[in-house]
Amino acid sequence: MKLYDMTLAPNPRRVRIFLAEKGITIPMEQVDIEKGENLAPAYLAVNPRGVVPTLVLDDGSILDESIAICRYFEALVPEPDLFGRSPLEIARIEAWQRRIEFEGMFNVAAAFRNSRPAFAARAAPGAGPPTAQIPALAERGLLLARAFLDMLEARLANSPFVAGDRYTVADITAIVTLDFARWVGLRVEEAHPHLAAYRARMKARPSTAA
Amino acid sequence: MKLYDMTLAPNPRRVRIFLAEKGITIPMEQVDIEKGENLAPAYLAVNPRGVVPTLVLDDGSILDESIAICRYFEALVPEPDLFGRSPLEIARIEAWQRRIEFEGMFNVAAAFRNSRPAFAARAAPGAGPPTAQIPALAERGLLLARAFLDMLEARLANSPFVAGDRYTVADITAIVTLDFARWVGLRVEEAHPHLAAYRARMKARPSTAA
Repeated sequence: MKLYDMTLAPNPRRVRIFLAEKGITIPMEQVDIEKGENLAPAYLAVNPRGVVPTLVLDDGSILDESIAICRYFEALVPEPDLFGRSPLEIARIEAWQRRIEFEGMFNVAAAFRNSRPAFAARAAPGAGPPTAQIPALAERGLLLARAFLDMLEARLANSPFVAGDRYTVADITAIVTLDFARWVGLRVEEAHPHLAAYRARMKARPSTAA
Repeated sequence: MKLYDMTLAPNPRRVRIFLAEKGITIPMEQVDIEKGENLAPAYLAVNPRGVVPTLVLDDGSILDESIAICRYFEALVPEPDLFGRSPLEIARIEAWQRRIEFEGMFNVAAAFRNSRPAFAARAAPGAGPPTAQIPALAERGLLLARAFLDMLEARLANSPFVAGDRYTVADITAIVTLDFARWVGLRVEEAHPHLAAYRARMKARPSTAA
């Protein structure tokens, strides 16, 4: 197996943290999205979709989508369990993972991709048609990402982890989103004490440095 | 249990089709999103997030996010299996479900929410801050949704179902997205013969009418 990765990008980081929590080590190769390496012929020959991360399996087939890759390793190495076991726990973790992703990560990504010069002509990720940046979408992304931080602050005032009383994949998406948010100028230190304390607790986990 | 539903909306339809495939019947109550019933006090008392569908459990707690609700029922009623069993199957179904959702449904939704008069002051779903429509985002949504249809046409030229040789939750997201796309003027009949044949096969399943 081999994982195509980009150290600074949020989606491959989710997979790296997940693997660290599982104690799994696999070979990795860097792909620089800002330089457009994900759209160069060499990488498109690996994954025509042009997205990172991509996991290449031993039979040569590929798997992409960060959460799908995480579910693959969850099924291969069930402990520690990060996606839940009982029907209700499975559902609550999935609901929180998706909510953090859609309200948080996607809005931060909208702000980032629609404002950063490197993505001026490819505001949407991957090898699809060229897309110009939309400044109004960057603004909307910031507005909704701020609302997301307020929501998560309220949640973490009443819960030690995002999905309840233990660490799950929803926390991986959350810490990656909080760090990604700093790239668009959103910091949680002052106005969000519970989020700041949560971020410090997450930073104390060795996996977060993965 | 009770499901808050809206017949015409794509996300609750995913849950209804999933339940029909499982042979599960539960009480449902309609919430009209176009009329803003999801943001009225009565519904916000059920789900402060203001999104539909919401599943109310017997203990009064709620569960939202359509795919999280589907995973709850998958765990309660494992047959027929719609999310996969082996590690690789679980991962491939998840990767396709997410790809259909992100490249297809989300782009159609961007085109729809940023152009339809009923959503002029709430282009983003749910009870977050008011958001004006962004016409350039509606255009980008259409552009990327068309690219998605071309991608899915190529996939279905080589695969009877989205994720492989059998029906899964990825097909539920796909048929709902294809029908949703018609609301923004995207039809698959002429230029996409494999998609059109797939849509006809899906329409022949009783669950698709749910």
